[in-house]
Amino acid sequence: MIELALRGAVQIFSEDGVRDRFKSGKRLRIKLGADPSKPDLHLGHTVILRRLKAMQDMGHEIVFLIGDFTGMIGDPSGKSKTRPKLTLEETRQNGESYLQQVGKILDAERATIEYNSKWLGAMNFADVINLASKYTVARTLERDDFTKRFKENRPISLHELLYPLAQGYDSVALGADIEVGGTDQTFNLLVGRELQRDYGQVPQEVITYPLLVGLDGKDKMSKSLDNYIGIDEPAHTMYEKAMKIPDSVLWDYFILTTDIPEEKAQNLIKTDIIAAHRAYAHEIITLYHGEAAIRDAEERYKAVASGFIPDIMQEAEIATDEDGNIGLLNLIRLCGLSTSNAEARRLVAGRGIKIDNVVVEDVNATICCKDGIVISKGKNRFVKIRCKV
Amino acid sequence: MIELALRGAVQIFSEDGVRDRFKSGKRLRIKLGADPSKPDLHLGHTVILRRLKAMQDMGHEIVFLIGDFTGMIGDPSGKSKTRPKLTLEETRQNGESYLQQVGKILDAERATIEYNSKWLGAMNFADVINLASKYTVARTLERDDFTKRFKENRPISLHELLYPLAQGYDSVALGADIEVGGTDQTFNLLVGRELQRDYGQVPQEVITYPLLVGLDGKDKMSKSLDNYIGIDEPAHTMYEKAMKIPDSVLWDYFILTTDIPEEKAQNLIKTDIIAAHRAYAHEIITLYHGEAAIRDAEERYKAVASGFIPDIMQEAEIATDEDGNIGLLNLIRLCGLSTSNAEARRLVAGRGIKIDNVVVEDVNATICCKDGIVISKGKNRFVKIRCKV
Repeated sequence: MIELALRGAVQIFSEDGVRDRFKSGKRLRIKLGADPSKPDLHLGHTVILRRLKAMQDMGHEIVFLIGDFTGMIGDPSGKSKTRPKLTLEETRQNGESYLQQVGKILDAERATIEYNSKWLGAMNFADVINLASKYTVARTLERDDFTKRFKENRPISLHELLYPLAQGYDSVALGADIEVGGTDQTFNLLVGRELQRDYGQVPQEVITYPLLVGLDGKDKMSKSLDNYIGIDEPAHTMYEKAMKIPDSVLWDYFILTTDIPEEKAQNLIKTDIIAAHRAYAHEIITLYHGEAAIRDAEERYKAVASGFIPDIMQEAEIATDEDGNIGLLNLIRLCGLSTSNAEARRLVAGRGIKIDNVVVEDVNATICCKDGIVISKGKNRFVKIRCKV
Repeated sequence: MIELALRGAVQIFSEDGVRDRFKSGKRLRIKLGADPSKPDLHLGHTVILRRLKAMQDMGHEIVFLIGDFTGMIGDPSGKSKTRPKLTLEETRQNGESYLQQVGKILDAERATIEYNSKWLGAMNFADVINLASKYTVARTLERDDFTKRFKENRPISLHELLYPLAQGYDSVALGADIEVGGTDQTFNLLVGRELQRDYGQVPQEVITYPLLVGLDGKDKMSKSLDNYIGIDEPAHTMYEKAMKIPDSVLWDYFILTTDIPEEKAQNLIKTDIIAAHRAYAHEIITLYHGEAAIRDAEERYKAVASGFIPDIMQEAEIATDEDGNIGLLNLIRLCGLSTSNAEARRLVAGRGIKIDNVVVEDVNATICCKDGIVISKGKNRFVKIRCKV
């Protein structure tokens, strides 16, 4: 159970500390800070939420810290356009919506929700000075995005330095035993650890998890980049988006957003990358809509996909090995879509080949042939396969 | 009158702005921030207070801003040992004492006293964030002592960055037209100027004045270094300390702490440095104890000084020019305290020669001889002079 809780973890401060506390038999307070400006949860958020579910199943208390107060400070992420500051009311509404959504992953009723305006809103200037006196400028500027901006002479407003302190003080106010977060939060989580020490508490353990890469295979999954799979999206949309996950990151999706054992995920990906996508789609639909939703989603997906495929098309009979498998490049050549394996390789590299409307990227892929699958080149060449073992 | 107000000023932001406002006929609010942890005023403090008196005489309102709130933040001056934080009560008492003392220089009844706890104490965390958002880290670190400490990796606590902001906000709260301060406050005064602009006010003009060097001729006058002349000290103590002012800085004392015209001060120092010290002593005793106190102070000083001089001593008859003057080195040699001018020069350089118990430093000094003056070498050689024109 501890292994499931730590699955995919990037850094643990300290690993011995975390394991000892998990084994201590004490009911731990485990904190996750939630950004109140982004209430629509997607798979990226579930990376940590699924770990929290494992910890909740171990009997620990999960505390969602809604930064309704810090949300008003704005965005210290270093992006050029500053995020609009939220009103207290907006952040409170977003917090409620957040709570409702996490209920899809863990037991929201057994979790605790806290709003940091409760203690931060009660602090006056003298309290802020006292808090700020616990930390030095140099240490604050060690934060990755601050270091970068400072070196590049891009302005850092003074109030942004207060943000990690406020966030760290939340751990003091909560008396957190463990705080979890994305790797982009490492610095802030460690500030909490140090402030707790300054305030005479046992410093919290810190666990960071990876940021899930979005459907573009490049940037962190986020709604604003439209590279996300939302947990509230319809099953057929999930299906369609799952089929579009770049091959290179499908492994991360399996490990970070499902409980499918590593070995099974590995086999799926190794054997048939298309089938692996399909299996992943089934898994997330099961998680967020129930197993019963799979069939409809699959059919709807196929109907949508086949909308792009002409009714009458060339057919090809392909000889496979006894398991029904064939190498991708051979398949392309035998269908008549290329005259050589070299040309087939270039087509794949140029993202010009699709199977059942999904781009295939790996030139070394093995395809499990089934009667009726459609292989296409560009927008106009389609070949329907008939198998011959 | 404007010239008297600006006498000795180091920097003016902007000079045109200051002169225009002085000429505008409007009654200006002129702010001086007072450090509430050092209530004992000495001549160093009077440098600016005398300028404020000139401004008050022009009809303007002088506002003493007692930093009773910022006094609780501690000392951001970069000294290794942090100054103990004051309680609100202590700062309030010190403020009252300050007011009483400035009454010796200007009309305290016509001046305004403000305590910044009035507005800073009413600010909450959100207000502090709003204030802090107006300023960037880079600009704050431009302050001389911050730059130095940051480069040398000496810790700067985050709360220290809030100090200039709080001080600058005082100008906003007061709606100051002009702020005056020592050259060590230049950065803070300019922050006030910028914050006023951010808050939609006409930015204050800023005038900085020099820091008076103490009796050691080296460091800024301060009580803790015991190199000060306090404005509350007895007249004979003032007399004694005035005679000890290093020759090299006596000019500054004349210009910065008296209204004696420059030309007169220059003549005094040029003609007879001892007599110039005496004239300076007379001037400050007149300012802080009244002219009537001079005679007693002088006699007491002489009695004290003569305690170190034996009753029976060698006498020397010295030939001077027709004005009674003689070069210092010649005097030393003719008295028999040296065998050559070169040796005399070394003695003066080593601070071994005194006239009437005052060290003479300038080897090129011209001494105005009078019967009965005593010239001494070290602690044991004394010669009483008889003059012969």
